[in-house]
Amino acid sequence: MECPGFQWAGVCAGIKNLKKKDLGLLVSDTPAAVAAVFTANRVKAAPVLLDMERVASGRCRAIVANSGNANCCTGDAGMAAALAMTKAVAEALGIDEALVLVASTGVIGAPMPTETITGAVPGLVKALRPDGLPDFSESILTTDRFAKSALRNVRLENGTTVTVCATAKGAGMIRPDMATMLCFVCTDLQADTDALSGMLSVAVDRSFNRITVDGDTSTNDTVFLMAGGASGAGLQTDADRQGFQQALDDVLTELARMMVTDGEGATKLVEVRVKGAKSDADARRVADTVANSSLVKTAFFGQDANWGRIMAAAGRAGVDLSPDAVDIFFDDVQMVKNGMGCGPEAERKASGVLKQPTICLGIDLNTGGTGAATVLTCDLSIEYVKINADYRT
Amino acid sequence: MECPGFQWAGVCAGIKNLKKKDLGLLVSDTPAAVAAVFTANRVKAAPVLLDMERVASGRCRAIVANSGNANCCTGDAGMAAALAMTKAVAEALGIDEALVLVASTGVIGAPMPTETITGAVPGLVKALRPDGLPDFSESILTTDRFAKSALRNVRLENGTTVTVCATAKGAGMIRPDMATMLCFVCTDLQADTDALSGMLSVAVDRSFNRITVDGDTSTNDTVFLMAGGASGAGLQTDADRQGFQQALDDVLTELARMMVTDGEGATKLVEVRVKGAKSDADARRVADTVANSSLVKTAFFGQDANWGRIMAAAGRAGVDLSPDAVDIFFDDVQMVKNGMGCGPEAERKASGVLKQPTICLGIDLNTGGTGAATVLTCDLSIEYVKINADYRT
Repeated sequence: MECPGFQWAGVCAGIKNLKKKDLGLLVSDTPAAVAAVFTANRVKAAPVLLDMERVASGRCRAIVANSGNANCCTGDAGMAAALAMTKAVAEALGIDEALVLVASTGVIGAPMPTETITGAVPGLVKALRPDGLPDFSESILTTDRFAKSALRNVRLENGTTVTVCATAKGAGMIRPDMATMLCFVCTDLQADTDALSGMLSVAVDRSFNRITVDGDTSTNDTVFLMAGGASGAGLQTDADRQGFQQALDDVLTELARMMVTDGEGATKLVEVRVKGAKSDADARRVADTVANSSLVKTAFFGQDANWGRIMAAAGRAGVDLSPDAVDIFFDDVQMVKNGMGCGPEAERKASGVLKQPTICLGIDLNTGGTGAATVLTCDLSIEYVKINADYRT
Repeated sequence: MECPGFQWAGVCAGIKNLKKKDLGLLVSDTPAAVAAVFTANRVKAAPVLLDMERVASGRCRAIVANSGNANCCTGDAGMAAALAMTKAVAEALGIDEALVLVASTGVIGAPMPTETITGAVPGLVKALRPDGLPDFSESILTTDRFAKSALRNVRLENGTTVTVCATAKGAGMIRPDMATMLCFVCTDLQADTDALSGMLSVAVDRSFNRITVDGDTSTNDTVFLMAGGASGAGLQTDADRQGFQQALDDVLTELARMMVTDGEGATKLVEVRVKGAKSDADARRVADTVANSSLVKTAFFGQDANWGRIMAAAGRAGVDLSPDAVDIFFDDVQMVKNGMGCGPEAERKASGVLKQPTICLGIDLNTGGTGAATVLTCDLSIEYVKINADYRT
């Protein structure tokens, strides 16, 4: 998985005190146009604050990322650490420091081992390769069970093929309220920053903002999109723009799905599809409330077709609905008709569906409206509690 | 624990197919003034819908309650079952059916075993006793580990002592958005319905609306308050009104605390106290968000002073705050000062606090405002997941 004009690296700097990669670098051969979406959490990590300033220039050459420490709630020392990381990378690459961005993920509130990181930067730069994405992907993982990357090619109307290539990390502290994790997207498209920003916002709203693992939102969430221009081609027509947007949506949606599949302790991926609402916003509220309900999520873990909890969650979503009109489906098995259970035969069939690793939970509010929304979630398992009870120890 | 003018009973009707009490009855010797607060969930159980109509008369003689079945999402048959329950009680007591209320708790969506229940009513009525509260309390339990009741006496200015006596059930599907469980309060005060309603609303907002177990809201939640008047005394002065309100607040707060202590799988009671917010509403949003965060709750289960998660939850509460100003305390141990950790010594002391069964989590936003709020929560344990994965099986 490669994107023309970009190189990647990932090494073990020793931040985690484990023999695991924990420092990554993504470099564009040329100053790329850049757009980013940052966490809406009021508590923002130092790298987020620094990037918010720097990304305003619209240009970026490199992004350095570490796992094992979120560099959040670390005060002035944290900002100094973020600056030191970008400075070390700029010096090793011989580029302007202002064109280097930084991302961190891991424990909040622990001091950054700055010298450990800057000491590893020369080796990191030496490890850069066009096919180094797998190393980079590995270096940003925390509780993730697997690395996540995705690629799409788009054929523009002038015959040029451009690439959208991305990698992401995220398994917990995930909630559909904004870009909710770290994600690095690069493309060889020629594009200006404004166009990139617009397309990235749309794609993030269609992908990462539609997933939830535990309803919590990280202090470090960032999605970066860099367009290096190596293809020599830009978006000239509406068809080009649509095609590229679709590719970007697809890449981010694929990563979002992977994140929920990899949700901490998750054993099941549940696609909550709400329709028949008075508006899309209403449908979204119902989908979000059901997707975040601990009781619904534990029932999925228990493979229990406990549709009463789904009704109860829908009922507290703050949306105008008539309980007597609601239909609920597990895949194509109708479990609830007009707000009432469909009986033992439906229960039996639904139990079969619930054994699957991926389940579609359909909720039709039948209000007469056409509002619809889909949110991806996972089950809440014993393993989730174990992982999060002992995260720092 | 008794209240003059009231009798209680609880029997095993066989609703649960277990040798456990599952049908209860509370009767006032005279038509009592009655007030009630019902769930705000759009999905309301049949007994809630029936009671909402009947309570409008302001008078009540009896409340029949069952566990093992919520009589929710049960359609016309559910309403017929609720009516049949009140009719059987009215006939056995020889009173007007319209003066009988009904409450149900248990699984949603299962058909009510109406004949099993009505068949048990004569025996239930025979079991009525002034000191029958413990039997009633037992009959309404579901996943509760213990029965919950509380009593206060208030001395009015004319020298009369009146009693406020209550029992409640609730351990899961609990969220501070309204009265969130079943609660039956009786008093021998002479009072009109309007006064009762006002005092009950205030007390519920100060007690049950300040607790959370899992952020889910039941379809059956109801708090009933009956004033039978056996004391012969009413509230004549402001001091009387304040005294009675205080007793009512105390009784409901004691029950609310018991509910969180008994939270499904809970090993710890956590009192989240937020202050220094720009308004009480802001403080409440921060307290609610922290109290409902799965990551914060699992960290308490793990006895991990993971204050970064508390900062992150506060940051996503949608409230204007400056992370650099936030202080966090576990009991009297300061863990965070000006948004940063206080170091290993504080961690060590905090670890000691976290071993306790009851913990006060203090969050000072230091905005310069005086907004404050307290919410009670519990930890999220492996046992919670086990209980809720297998609830129906």
